[in-house]
Amino acid sequence: MTKDDIAGFFAVRADLNLDDYIELDFSFECAGDPHEAAAHLASEQSTAQWRRVGVDEDFRPRFAAKVLDLRAEPRPSGFSIPVECAVRGEVHACRATIAHPHGNFGPRLPNLLSAVLGEGVFFAPGIPLIRLEDIRFPASYLAAFEGPQFGLNGLRERLKAFDRPIFFGVIKPNIGLPPEPFAELGYQSWLGGLDIAKDDEMLADIPWCPLKARAAALGAARRRAEQETGEPKIYLANITDEVDRLIELHDVAVEAGANALLVNAMPVGLSGVRMLRRHAEVPLIAHFPFIAAFSRLAGYGVHSRVFTRLQRLAGFDAVIMPGFGPRMMTPEHEVVACIHACLEPMGPIKPCLPVPGGSDSAATLEGVFHKIGSTDFGFVPGRGVFGHPMGPRGGAASIRQAWQAIARGIPVEAHATANPELKAALEAFGKRG
Amino acid sequence: MTKDDIAGFFAVRADLNLDDYIELDFSFECAGDPHEAAAHLASEQSTAQWRRVGVDEDFRPRFAAKVLDLRAEPRPSGFSIPVECAVRGEVHACRATIAHPHGNFGPRLPNLLSAVLGEGVFFAPGIPLIRLEDIRFPASYLAAFEGPQFGLNGLRERLKAFDRPIFFGVIKPNIGLPPEPFAELGYQSWLGGLDIAKDDEMLADIPWCPLKARAAALGAARRRAEQETGEPKIYLANITDEVDRLIELHDVAVEAGANALLVNAMPVGLSGVRMLRRHAEVPLIAHFPFIAAFSRLAGYGVHSRVFTRLQRLAGFDAVIMPGFGPRMMTPEHEVVACIHACLEPMGPIKPCLPVPGGSDSAATLEGVFHKIGSTDFGFVPGRGVFGHPMGPRGGAASIRQAWQAIARGIPVEAHATANPELKAALEAFGKRG
Repeated sequence: MTKDDIAGFFAVRADLNLDDYIELDFSFECAGDPHEAAAHLASEQSTAQWRRVGVDEDFRPRFAAKVLDLRAEPRPSGFSIPVECAVRGEVHACRATIAHPHGNFGPRLPNLLSAVLGEGVFFAPGIPLIRLEDIRFPASYLAAFEGPQFGLNGLRERLKAFDRPIFFGVIKPNIGLPPEPFAELGYQSWLGGLDIAKDDEMLADIPWCPLKARAAALGAARRRAEQETGEPKIYLANITDEVDRLIELHDVAVEAGANALLVNAMPVGLSGVRMLRRHAEVPLIAHFPFIAAFSRLAGYGVHSRVFTRLQRLAGFDAVIMPGFGPRMMTPEHEVVACIHACLEPMGPIKPCLPVPGGSDSAATLEGVFHKIGSTDFGFVPGRGVFGHPMGPRGGAASIRQAWQAIARGIPVEAHATANPELKAALEAFGKRG
Repeated sequence: MTKDDIAGFFAVRADLNLDDYIELDFSFECAGDPHEAAAHLASEQSTAQWRRVGVDEDFRPRFAAKVLDLRAEPRPSGFSIPVECAVRGEVHACRATIAHPHGNFGPRLPNLLSAVLGEGVFFAPGIPLIRLEDIRFPASYLAAFEGPQFGLNGLRERLKAFDRPIFFGVIKPNIGLPPEPFAELGYQSWLGGLDIAKDDEMLADIPWCPLKARAAALGAARRRAEQETGEPKIYLANITDEVDRLIELHDVAVEAGANALLVNAMPVGLSGVRMLRRHAEVPLIAHFPFIAAFSRLAGYGVHSRVFTRLQRLAGFDAVIMPGFGPRMMTPEHEVVACIHACLEPMGPIKPCLPVPGGSDSAATLEGVFHKIGSTDFGFVPGRGVFGHPMGPRGGAASIRQAWQAIARGIPVEAHATANPELKAALEAFGKRG
């Protein structure tokens, strides 16, 4: 690129109608001139060739992505991650903000993904390592999306659960049980105090535990539990399947008795979720398979908060995400960023419930609550409820007992002396930092 | 895990009915005992809790994934990539093959992805770094998929192009042109010798160049080019969009004159592609946005050949993929592995056409042909045709002239003396290694 070419891909905010642009924060490591690398990054994701041969024209003013901000620091030690085919040259670690004109692709999730995480981003000359750190949308773009139908407040209304976390549990054994004994586990967990008993993300519509029969068994168990406890309960059925079955499985599951639906967001595809959202009569809850494949590393891929935002945009009412603690290998600041991405203002798009999960139990609830600093979260043990020594009813009770202690400002361990389920949980699952 | 627990997740092939299992090759780096890490890897992706509390049962024999093979070498220098939340302990670099029972999820792409690239794989205790290197399916599993409708041979038949590569070109400027001048560029490239003129992966159904009008203009131009050259031509229209528009856009584009369709595989989702495949009347061609986000690094994520196999399984007739040369930052062995994944036997699933691309031109064709070692590939320049100094007709001619030389065993540079388009291409785009 010539100096003039490079200059055509830089701009200042004051020169742009910001309603027309999505803003993207990238971190990247480049070999060679950081300004040229940033210009390539903008060019390749938009007007890679901005004029016809022999025609005096320039598509950049309207269609080019523009670099708004660039900071570069030398990395004398070279690239932070080995890349077999990295270019050679002096390495810089850079942060760049790019304004990408959304009129190039419109309010469609696949086209958005193609623009901000496509060939242009990952194959920009000179940039072998890059991570999309964050994404910001103008309200005019967001207005074309439906977003969550119920959202955080709608879920609270359905459960009549205010001023406390929402208590989920993953029914375990996760794989192998037929509908009736599986439903019995859910029933026991509701009696013990869970709001939402859920299918594991691996358990879908499968011959040895068909969705219809499972939803019927769990639906009946749920209604019994609601009568016995006097509290609304949710059976969260996993309808993850081929996209052309989603609508059918929604109808099958809801008619049989499921009153919320789990979808593995990335395996199904965010666009399939958006389609389902337009049809859905019940809350949609996201699970996170596959996302770690591109979000674990600080130096490459995509920050997971970007996908939290996209899941909210696609219409999920709650997003289950890797939570705190060493088991989930996710830095605390990243979990917190994803929680904020669910809750913070997003134009006309409703907040959704963040559900940070991973090896939780009555022993971890207090730590999670303090790290989040509010009650606006879902708590989703698996073995912490269903592997509890006293069974799922005792496991669920232990969670509610831990919450009683926290809500009353009593030390959880002290509360355990009078609450055998909590005591057993603390003994079985230990105290986590 | 106890020693007995660990042993329950190891098996030998002779003890398994291999028709019931998908085989997964992983490389990973773990802290602590590699055997326990491998057992966790198998457990977490299948029967994470294999019995109910108080019930004498074991779901592992039928439902557990099993480690078939494990090799571990110490890495005294620690993990090869920094991971903020990596566990501590002695590090080993490992290779493991795992047999995963597909009866846990069935022949559904989202459920397959959830199993082999889900929470169980990326959050196995002790394993912060892992890469799915390859995947093998039993024929009984493959038989439930449609695969490519036309495939490599069907594409050749449609184009009457045998014993040579298929010549694609990405119409450029990629973004900003309205239908008529865009069609004129395609027309010129067909006259010059392209088989397939295609939309850029970023150009979809957009108000300033609506798919219907574009397909009509390109369709008419295509038919004129077919009459003038006496050769079949393809206009490859990009219908990447929300999944609930794919069928409609297929019909709109095909009726208007597109005779093959481009879909950005990962942004749309493989399951959306499979849905489209069941409806499609024309070949479906994959483009690769997003895949690099999880496949670039040797030490983490997914080897891109896995996604090549999955794109073929989903029903693509051709797969555009990052090709040779420094621009695409993809090791040669990886490009070759992806090409083989298109062509090698895959039970009842037809071969598809591999299209390795990236900054190609008449100057790179010979190198690409020699690296592949056969004519079974597509060649897909962008600027190499549409940025050619003599315009797209000259650009396309330069590609065909380069192929004439290669096919006749003449040095390409020698052939250029009598062929001005080829000469201009070599001068403009240089000779690449």
